[in-house]
Amino acid sequence: MNEIIETILNHRSIRKYEDKPLTEEQIEIIVKSAQAASTSSYVQAYTIIGVKDKEKKKELARLAGDQTYVENNGHLLIFCADLHRHELIGEMENTEVSQSLDTTESFMIAVIDAALAAQNAALAAESMGLGICYIGGLRNNLVEVSEVLRIPKHVIPLFAMTIGYPLHTSDKKPRLPFKHIYHEEEYQPDSSILKEQLEDYNETVQQYYEERTNGKRQDTWTSQMAERFSEPRRIYMKEYVQKQGFDKK
Amino acid sequence: MNEIIETILNHRSIRKYEDKPLTEEQIEIIVKSAQAASTSSYVQAYTIIGVKDKEKKKELARLAGDQTYVENNGHLLIFCADLHRHELIGEMENTEVSQSLDTTESFMIAVIDAALAAQNAALAAESMGLGICYIGGLRNNLVEVSEVLRIPKHVIPLFAMTIGYPLHTSDKKPRLPFKHIYHEEEYQPDSSILKEQLEDYNETVQQYYEERTNGKRQDTWTSQMAERFSEPRRIYMKEYVQKQGFDKK
Repeated sequence: MNEIIETILNHRSIRKYEDKPLTEEQIEIIVKSAQAASTSSYVQAYTIIGVKDKEKKKELARLAGDQTYVENNGHLLIFCADLHRHELIGEMENTEVSQSLDTTESFMIAVIDAALAAQNAALAAESMGLGICYIGGLRNNLVEVSEVLRIPKHVIPLFAMTIGYPLHTSDKKPRLPFKHIYHEEEYQPDSSILKEQLEDYNETVQQYYEERTNGKRQDTWTSQMAERFSEPRRIYMKEYVQKQGFDKK
Repeated sequence: MNEIIETILNHRSIRKYEDKPLTEEQIEIIVKSAQAASTSSYVQAYTIIGVKDKEKKKELARLAGDQTYVENNGHLLIFCADLHRHELIGEMENTEVSQSLDTTESFMIAVIDAALAAQNAALAAESMGLGICYIGGLRNNLVEVSEVLRIPKHVIPLFAMTIGYPLHTSDKKPRLPFKHIYHEEEYQPDSSILKEQLEDYNETVQQYYEERTNGKRQDTWTSQMAERFSEPRRIYMKEYVQKQGFDKK
């Protein structure tokens, strides 16, 4: 196994960091690593906002569900799906582009581009001995987040990433069985096989929690997921996304 | 610079491969690397389909816009946003989840999860000396692709990835200026600064094409993008995505 695969497999989210900011050089390496990712048809449909201001980080931490590590870290990045620059390009090139920016396809391109870039940033940071955590909680309240970050139309903050010098390690949560995630030749058509794999996985996850909590935590993955999806969350999202000029048709 | 950042920065898409299939072990390392990526609230909302069958690859190559490297490579992966297993979990746990799977938020989670996993897969492959290419052209015709791969409801094939032993190298296309992609504290509110940065970048891109084509190709990035977005593409996407049970409310 090479060093890169080792780093990839060794990933765990880090939620407590030393009070030591990243250097400008580290930030630049991380962002340039993000930019080196593939991008659909060269569109580069994302922007990364770096936040250092203490008050702003505090406010974002509150909006993301009071997660203290959003405030306390070495650096905070916000990954945004971005077609605003393509709107500006329409003006520069005197071309009508708004019909095209509005589509679900363009929305998907921008979300995928931003995520590919983010994962490169995560690995670049981890390769330097830093820890990271993705903050999906940023989507709790994108209307307010957009005010704090002065987000224009055709931009959506998708998630944040905290980066810093780790103050703890954590366990790697077991992933779904290989054969459940990886299908050969076509999507596994037999639901009973998929359900059996999930039952097997439940045992793995249950054992993982039991060992970590001395038997106190007993839940399975499917029970967690059923709970997670029992009520729709962030139901304002469709309206927000469309107000930002995405995914309209 | 460490080996990982070197691999990340050294990425280029490879479109011609030796006629040499990946081993099962290589495939497993790549998929397990994908699985090691962060996933929103542990939902693991994606599936990877590996295609070896010659006829099926040929058919997918045709659907993706006659790209021969979709047929001729060491292995072909299809990355799918997937909430089908969460639908099954609803049955297993006797919980009503359909209201939650339908939301734009759940759609975004699944797309982001799949893309993070894909970028890990790409880097794992590249770290082993393999080349990769993302195939967004798969989205040209997802209705037919879904038939070929027997895609159920709550699953969307987002893109493919060709992997194999490279038969060429290629140049790295210059990326947007660091200061254009990376904003500090808030989204850059001054459009004239953004436009200036794009003008500067145009010179870089123009020079890149001129050098590669002995002066034959002259276009700028903004002209490419204006052309790219002058007409909406894949306008069937919204209907398809919603038919698959995503992004409905």
